[in-house]
Amino acid sequence: MAESTNMRLRLPLLCIILEVILIILFGLLVEYNDETDAKLWNENRTHSATRNDHENEFYYRYPSFQDVHVMIFVGFGFLMTFLQRYGFSSVGFNFLIAAFSLQWATLMQGFFHGMHHGKIHVGVTSMINADFCTGSVLISFGAVLGKTSPVQLLVMAIFEVTLFAVNEFILLSILGANDAGGSMTIHTFGAYFGLVVTRVLYRPNLDKSKHKNSSVYHSDLFAMIGTIYLWMFWPSFNSAITNYGDPQHRTAMNTYYSLAACTLATFAFSALVNPEGKLDMVHIQNAALAGGVAVGTAGEMMLTAFGSMIVGFLAGTISVLGYKYLSPVLESKLKIQDTCGIHNLHGMPGVLGAIVGAVTAALATPDVYGQGLQRVFADVETGQWNPQSKGGFQAISLAVTLGMALFGGLITGLILKLPIYGAPPDAQCFEDGVYWEVPGEEEDQHELYEVATANEVEKLSS
Amino acid sequence: MAESTNMRLRLPLLCIILEVILIILFGLLVEYNDETDAKLWNENRTHSATRNDHENEFYYRYPSFQDVHVMIFVGFGFLMTFLQRYGFSSVGFNFLIAAFSLQWATLMQGFFHGMHHGKIHVGVTSMINADFCTGSVLISFGAVLGKTSPVQLLVMAIFEVTLFAVNEFILLSILGANDAGGSMTIHTFGAYFGLVVTRVLYRPNLDKSKHKNSSVYHSDLFAMIGTIYLWMFWPSFNSAITNYGDPQHRTAMNTYYSLAACTLATFAFSALVNPEGKLDMVHIQNAALAGGVAVGTAGEMMLTAFGSMIVGFLAGTISVLGYKYLSPVLESKLKIQDTCGIHNLHGMPGVLGAIVGAVTAALATPDVYGQGLQRVFADVETGQWNPQSKGGFQAISLAVTLGMALFGGLITGLILKLPIYGAPPDAQCFEDGVYWEVPGEEEDQHELYEVATANEVEKLSS
Amino acid sequence: MAESTNMRLRLPLLCIILEVILIILFGLLVEYNDETDAKLWNENRTHSATRNDHENEFYYRYPSFQDVHVMIFVGFGFLMTFLQRYGFSSVGFNFLIAAFSLQWATLMQGFFHGMHHGKIHVGVTSMINADFCTGSVLISFGAVLGKTSPVQLLVMAIFEVTLFAVNEFILLSILGANDAGGSMTIHTFGAYFGLVVTRVLYRPNLDKSKHKNSSVYHSDLFAMIGTIYLWMFWPSFNSAITNYGDPQHRTAMNTYYSLAACTLATFAFSALVNPEGKLDMVHIQNAALAGGVAVGTAGEMMLTAFGSMIVGFLAGTISVLGYKYLSPVLESKLKIQDTCGIHNLHGMPGVLGAIVGAVTAALATPDVYGQGLQRVFADVETGQWNPQSKGGFQAISLAVTLGMALFGGLITGLILKLPIYGAPPDAQCFEDGVYWEVPGEEEDQHELYEVATANEVEKLSS
Repeated sequence: MAESTNMRLRLPLLCIILEVILIILFGLLVEYNDETDAKLWNENRTHSATRNDHENEFYYRYPSFQDVHVMIFVGFGFLMTFLQRYGFSSVGFNFLIAAFSLQWATLMQGFFHGMHHGKIHVGVTSMINADFCTGSVLISFGAVLGKTSPVQLLVMAIFEVTLFAVNEFILLSILGANDAGGSMTIHTFGAYFGLVVTRVLYRPNLDKSKHKNSSVYHSDLFAMIGTIYLWMFWPSFNSAITNYGDPQHRTAMNTYYSLAACTLATFAFSALVNPEGKLDMVHIQNAALAGGVAVGTAGEMMLTAFGSMIVGFLAGTISVLGYKYLSPVLESKLKIQDTCGIHNLHGMPGVLGAIVGAVTAALATPDVYGQGLQRVFADVETGQWNPQSKGGFQAISLAVTLGMALFGGLITGLILKLPIYGAPPDAQCFEDGVYWEVPGEEEDQHELYEVATANEVEKLSS
Repeated sequence: MAESTNMRLRLPLLCIILEVILIILFGLLVEYNDETDAKLWNENRTHSATRNDHENEFYYRYPSFQDVHVMIFVGFGFLMTFLQRYGFSSVGFNFLIAAFSLQWATLMQGFFHGMHHGKIHVGVTSMINADFCTGSVLISFGAVLGKTSPVQLLVMAIFEVTLFAVNEFILLSILGANDAGGSMTIHTFGAYFGLVVTRVLYRPNLDKSKHKNSSVYHSDLFAMIGTIYLWMFWPSFNSAITNYGDPQHRTAMNTYYSLAACTLATFAFSALVNPEGKLDMVHIQNAALAGGVAVGTAGEMMLTAFGSMIVGFLAGTISVLGYKYLSPVLESKLKIQDTCGIHNLHGMPGVLGAIVGAVTAALATPDVYGQGLQRVFADVETGQWNPQSKGGFQAISLAVTLGMALFGGLITGLILKLPIYGAPPDAQCFEDGVYWEVPGEEEDQHELYEVATANEVEKLSS
Repeated sequence: MAESTNMRLRLPLLCIILEVILIILFGLLVEYNDETDAKLWNENRTHSATRNDHENEFYYRYPSFQDVHVMIFVGFGFLMTFLQRYGFSSVGFNFLIAAFSLQWATLMQGFFHGMHHGKIHVGVTSMINADFCTGSVLISFGAVLGKTSPVQLLVMAIFEVTLFAVNEFILLSILGANDAGGSMTIHTFGAYFGLVVTRVLYRPNLDKSKHKNSSVYHSDLFAMIGTIYLWMFWPSFNSAITNYGDPQHRTAMNTYYSLAACTLATFAFSALVNPEGKLDMVHIQNAALAGGVAVGTAGEMMLTAFGSMIVGFLAGTISVLGYKYLSPVLESKLKIQDTCGIHNLHGMPGVLGAIVGAVTAALATPDVYGQGLQRVFADVETGQWNPQSKGGFQAISLAVTLGMALFGGLITGLILKLPIYGAPPDAQCFEDGVYWEVPGEEEDQHELYEVATANEVEKLSS
């Protein structure tokens, strides 16, 4: 007997309870920071001769925030609409879990590294960080896409956001790692977390809905909206919380070059691995983005355009080959059913990015960075660490992240395996109709044609 | 005998006459302001030791303007593409009346509160304000969507823009109301104006085109493009013309939290009101945005994230319940045919926003705002009004807005009822084909199948 | 015997070789500029008392860059998805050639006007310029859309980018022309280059794929995404590299007014030229943008809103009439098969823009510009030229651009005519299936109905 997928009580109850808890915690713990509080800002402003309203953080972070916001809601949301009958869920559940995660992340991240006298201070930087954490959850969503109920996804988000904040705290605050664009904290963490979750939730009979686990012509075009927005705004993503000035400017530019080179590699290898030399939309939609992932750590460093392009080219290559040769093996041998292929887009390129970051950090010298060294590697400049040990800490950070992701994914996966969330049966995976009121279209036309056919036949036979 | 819907003379004539009048009036009345005029800007810049090119208003308003611009053209335009055969008109007429309204609004708003020595001065702030006024017209468009000719829509815009400017003048300049994000001036006004217009244009036989007044699978996905863009950029909308510094930063953040909470409420209640617990795209597309409307007035105040989330949660709840239970009653009892349900997205949440604004204003104290009080409530800080009377004026502003909207909508509706605009007959509402060259698709396929059927049948019978 | 369209070796080989060459040249020639280099920026910053991180060029150019970036990848990419079965290629090839062109353009433009001690310095301004050059290639792409292989397009981009950089060098550095928004350098050049290429590649039997050279309902909606983004962000495009302060602010505003007026003209004439007064999506998608093209040169000048609106109105009118009456003649008489009608959107409006620029420049006086004259016309302010000769140089610039475009297009067209690129046969133009793995949809449904039909028939006959 299949578990009921009716969400009438489960989803409202969970949403309302979560939101009420969030509201209470925000009421108790959250305060405007110095840049958003009317009293504090104006006091500070008056006391400082050089500070004026134009220098509010808002003007230097908010455009980046909006680009990141577009990536989270349009980018991730539409990227996953490639499935023929799962567009409502892709955009809609993406919307739901992102809206929840950004609130929960504000609390968790604030709790771990934003407390001031017992209060969490919020402003545009916390908004960006919350969106970053949300991105990690959405990456994991990509692995389980089509096989989970919205209740399951919200529960996953609760745990993943929490562990994300812990891991981020260990990396940035304890290990002092650099990871402005989140190759480790966001991509590697989100990918391996999601892969373990989908492994635990393995469905041996998923081939029952195999025919729905593919795209149609227009769904691929909708997905390209997501791809292109992710691609265009990735420079803003990687640079959104770097230090002001040259680091932010440089990060955006490095990312831009990495992505451009990655795109050429993607087209090249997509055609190469196809017997007829035809391009595959799956590669273009996903692998072309790997270049952004792979400079997430090193982007703020003096990687140079040259270095960025090499990294991007490698990332695109790895990603296409992963889609073609590795994903089928992961599914058949390791029982990892990775709907969107997040291992190829976020997993391997994330690890590559972490390694590139460690190497680039290890090569950092005052000769290259001048007085700018302090802006990127404060602890190297103060002499606390030498570049080599800095590079070592970067590598340790990757290991920690992988450990946290695998462990967290395992626990979370087991929790999600409980038969209480209304997950779809095997035969109804990748199908909006389970959780959505779906309007006719194919159906309607179908009917139309059936009527037409019947008429023709009748006419003839009469 | 049905009125002809041929636009060959009517539409070109109206467009050309309007544009020629606009060009003449712009030639007579409009001038660059201090920030856009080559002479004035450079004189001012030279005279002030501290003013440099980086401080041009452009750099602090233009990114917000572009976000607002996206909401007006992509957000509103695509939100209305949910109808299965009205996508060209939704995006296209939205485009036309927005392009007209922003020009006309520049003149009307300039006339009422931007005259300098008999000239209207324009710059990025006037561009934002013109887009705001345009938003109000597009809200009203949502009520009459599918039932009006482009000529009718342009005529509606002429009157609505004018009355919008009058109402805005009364609120902001006479009553000294706060309404940075336009809960009253934009949403309440636009919604009730549109509702009265559609009431006056009531079509008793609209059920003749009932089957077209619904979505299909892909049209709902196009509509989600509109929804997501409105949702993401609403923080920019509400903060676009607030004072620099903390008010702008705070407004954006309050709106962000309100929308996040609203989204969870929307999903919760959408599932709850459905017997099978299935989510309804109409709710997700619309009600999730009500949180932005409801903090349009109070967003710049010290509402706190906590307060914003409560308001957002309420707005989402009200909006979903409105779609489910109130809209059918409005149609059957009050004969208000509200195609997009603007009463649920802009009407009730707008009124809620006005009330929240009045209450929050009444609670404003120097204790909370410090020296920032002057930046939000200049007239309270100067002692002209106490917070309570300020709150009272906010409430009066709501009443005035409702009065203006109802009265204006009535007059405009009566004018639009004249049988000279080529409105579509009842049976051809919600149909692009009336005013657009529509390419085949369903038709073509239809033909294909008919041919196929005929062949099959023939083959058999031979 | 038709040439093979298999891309398996050709495309990967070309992409990889090109990217490797790019990477090597970037390694040898490209360096961070003063605003992106950690060492240089922080040295300069420390030496200047007034320069702080907030004044990094990034904060004043990057939002404009992102808007331009959206136009290049979403705007151009989706604008061309109007064809019913060419959406993958439109967005995908646009993506590929843009990603290549922006890298190649960085080198070419740097070589001609960005060398510092033998090195090309890069930063956000070079990123904008590279995107501009890319825009020109994408305009030409519009002329040959549907009739070329991706290898051909990359080869076209190699030559066009190079010649673009030469022409830009002649105009801006030798003739001292003003052309911030590229009416000449981008639009006129890209259009006439592309028109000559498509002329050389003339296909007498293109009517074999005539039925695919048209839109379907949803493809027109996808194209509107492109249109609206181009329309909204054109103010950012024209102002992206103007001088800071009033010129940038003014350019954005002039473009905004020109586009608004253009839109009304487009709707007016689209209805007027149709016997039934029905609007044509081709006009709305394209002609409404001509207003942006036509103020590409004069936008930064004191054109006034009044002047901008007149120019926009004219541009829209010319463009619609071009689509209706000129394009068919160009095809039948001159054998120019211009798939997207770039002559109407970029060609004629570009020339109009050049002329408007020349006239506006000739009328520039210190009276109007005050001390701002130097910011727009440095060489007039220094007395090197009087306004009239400045206007003359603008006109000469147009002539040079036309000459370069026609000559460059001819050479490039002849090179592209070689039968080695795997161009599609006449019967398979405008068809994604040649170069892409295309998922079912119409096909699947078709099958479904065939089965249904067969069943019906069988049932009856049994």
